[in-house]
Amino acid sequence: MHDLHTVAASSRAAYLTLADADANARNRALLAMADALLAEKEHLFSENAKDIEDAKQSNLPAPLLKRLSFGEEKLRSVVQGLRDLAALPDPLGHTTLARELTEGLKLYRVTCPIGVIGVIFESRPDALVQIASLALKSGNAVLLKGGREAAKTNLALCNVLRNAAEKTGLPADFAQLLTSREEVSEMLKEDELIDLIIPRGSKAFVRYIMDNSRIPVLGHADGICHVYLDRSADPAMAVRVAVDSKIQNVSVCNAMETLLVHREIAPVVLPDLAEAYAQAHVDLVGDEETVSLIHCQPASEEDWSTEYLDYRLSIRIVNSLDEAIDHINRYGSHHTDCIVTSDDAAASVFLRRVDSAGVYRNVSTRFADGFVYGFGAEVGIATGKIHARGPMGVEGLTTYKYKLLGSGQTMTDVKAGRLTYTHRNLEEACPL
Amino acid sequence: MHDLHTVAASSRAAYLTLADADANARNRALLAMADALLAEKEHLFSENAKDIEDAKQSNLPAPLLKRLSFGEEKLRSVVQGLRDLAALPDPLGHTTLARELTEGLKLYRVTCPIGVIGVIFESRPDALVQIASLALKSGNAVLLKGGREAAKTNLALCNVLRNAAEKTGLPADFAQLLTSREEVSEMLKEDELIDLIIPRGSKAFVRYIMDNSRIPVLGHADGICHVYLDRSADPAMAVRVAVDSKIQNVSVCNAMETLLVHREIAPVVLPDLAEAYAQAHVDLVGDEETVSLIHCQPASEEDWSTEYLDYRLSIRIVNSLDEAIDHINRYGSHHTDCIVTSDDAAASVFLRRVDSAGVYRNVSTRFADGFVYGFGAEVGIATGKIHARGPMGVEGLTTYKYKLLGSGQTMTDVKAGRLTYTHRNLEEACPL
Repeated sequence: MHDLHTVAASSRAAYLTLADADANARNRALLAMADALLAEKEHLFSENAKDIEDAKQSNLPAPLLKRLSFGEEKLRSVVQGLRDLAALPDPLGHTTLARELTEGLKLYRVTCPIGVIGVIFESRPDALVQIASLALKSGNAVLLKGGREAAKTNLALCNVLRNAAEKTGLPADFAQLLTSREEVSEMLKEDELIDLIIPRGSKAFVRYIMDNSRIPVLGHADGICHVYLDRSADPAMAVRVAVDSKIQNVSVCNAMETLLVHREIAPVVLPDLAEAYAQAHVDLVGDEETVSLIHCQPASEEDWSTEYLDYRLSIRIVNSLDEAIDHINRYGSHHTDCIVTSDDAAASVFLRRVDSAGVYRNVSTRFADGFVYGFGAEVGIATGKIHARGPMGVEGLTTYKYKLLGSGQTMTDVKAGRLTYTHRNLEEACPL
Repeated sequence: MHDLHTVAASSRAAYLTLADADANARNRALLAMADALLAEKEHLFSENAKDIEDAKQSNLPAPLLKRLSFGEEKLRSVVQGLRDLAALPDPLGHTTLARELTEGLKLYRVTCPIGVIGVIFESRPDALVQIASLALKSGNAVLLKGGREAAKTNLALCNVLRNAAEKTGLPADFAQLLTSREEVSEMLKEDELIDLIIPRGSKAFVRYIMDNSRIPVLGHADGICHVYLDRSADPAMAVRVAVDSKIQNVSVCNAMETLLVHREIAPVVLPDLAEAYAQAHVDLVGDEETVSLIHCQPASEEDWSTEYLDYRLSIRIVNSLDEAIDHINRYGSHHTDCIVTSDDAAASVFLRRVDSAGVYRNVSTRFADGFVYGFGAEVGIATGKIHARGPMGVEGLTTYKYKLLGSGQTMTDVKAGRLTYTHRNLEEACPL
């Protein structure tokens, strides 16, 4: 690997070429990547076997081994993902505003790629393919840094994608792999060449990146998701949603970590819930009132702001909808929060006032996902407020530019009253 | 002023109330502000007179004194601005995506405010009114730090706006004024309470803010704007656009700083341009070839990346459209750049490949402005790629949340095949 400045400059050149490539060229590259992954599968599997062997030697826990493995099933899934992505509409070149400013002067706001994006992700090789392909579809170049446990698999995958892109005439450097922490540190300094950093990881990790770069950061940080069972919740639905949100997959960011229950419904639903959670071996901690109703340990203040990612749940009884909303806005991570209620007015207040990327009514928090939303896949789930929120698919990887088409208009003419603003909205796409 | 954490917490509470206020309430407050500014004008003028007196004592240059003054004309302008803003459509509550995910489960993406925004701006009191009113229209709370020369005027203006908001039932703390650099330093640390910082100032200042906060920053930094006279430019239009872009107002970020001229047209247009610039007392610096054609000093490498904000212009002769684009992408600040050409193909390449927020054809760069674009006003002109680009009006101050409305759907049912994704786009607004 050359020095990072040279690498980033090469990404920038690749981006400027990609941004100018038409949708067919980008989609052809995606399909070529799918074919190449299938053709090279034996090599990919054997490189993955080496990573797995190394990981076993260093006693990596079983769930992490499962994420690290890249076999037939994950291959089929990423190949299908590439083909689905190729079939999605082009996110670039859309006119989202068209307006006549003054006679003969037309303003267009047109979607375009962001540029060069650095993505730091966990030891899950299929993530590399998803991220690189979303970037290419949206005309961006990416610098990729995966978990070191997946080093050999990532290198093999990245080379297959780069070669496939190059064979269809697009620059191989649309995706470049970083292999060391030092390179990540160097990357964070290249704010003239890199437009965005997407770190996937813990809140502490995302903060570390923010503290060490002036490049904008879209953090995919922790998910302290809540389900609030309103007093008018249907009890059977309350149990179903609260159980699924917790136990369908405990180790993901959209799993519930805290359950809030309205006092009036607590005696009705908590016993059933406690039984369901006991069957699934979920450890419960609760506030004083919860402890008085069901068998569970007392929760500490720290529990309310902890992402367990495990078979553990904190439960709190609240006196009102407002108290539930205040708890979520105070302790939550602005990821995804759900109200279970049959009351439209309560649902409306919750959806408006809870300050999170996803606000749900009567549905498991596990639905917060780019694939589920129909975005093809996601480069991350943004918990900040700026640019993109929630699951970030190709749309989240675009920005826009203003194109202004005139015929010699000057501000001097405006100031002299020879031109006046019309500000007439137009129904047309930018012709250039 | 209390400690900054308390101040920011109060802004956050104000934002949560504002975000829940309907458009009528916000528009009523804007109209009340307009009336209150008129009613309090004598007090405002007398406070401004004190600022002006202090500024004269410290020998503030005349152009800065002009920006600092707040008299009848600026009052009329901000009052009209408030009334125009009240009449603009509500930027909140728009459904920008509606999709059925599976039977009975509907996803809506709905626009909402960002939250608490810190804005640091220059000594121009009318900017305070514009920023605070754009924030209120879009449901955000602002922490305002203006230039210290305008301290008394800003305090008086902010109090008028706060009182007017409060009288119409909205929280006064939607706008709070910071008065010291120490408070700005404290503000930069409040990343749990503040969602966005908009610093208006030099590139060095914007970088300082980025280096000292993990809050996202939308920089309104320097404008190194270019006009490129293509070989197929109409000579008269080329001169008109190049002159207006430079001299109509030299001290603003959308004024041209570098003129690029295709070699073939240089002998035709440069003599006329040199004469026009001489009449306007613009000092010219140029590359070797320009120096050989017209009377000007040689440019240094530094000139190409300097924002003069003055009666000074750098000129460079290029061999091709590509050379012009490469120069702009290398030395420019991604603000606004223009091509003058009668060739559609050349225009199309320029507009696609120049990596700037505004890409213009045949029109003065001076049109890059929120008022000109019909956005009411602007809180800044963003030169980054993330979130908003170019003039930021109320739309740039909004984000979105995903509202998902279900009837008890679980991921367990999806995985068991009892539910399948339909991903059917809908033509409807979110009902809640």
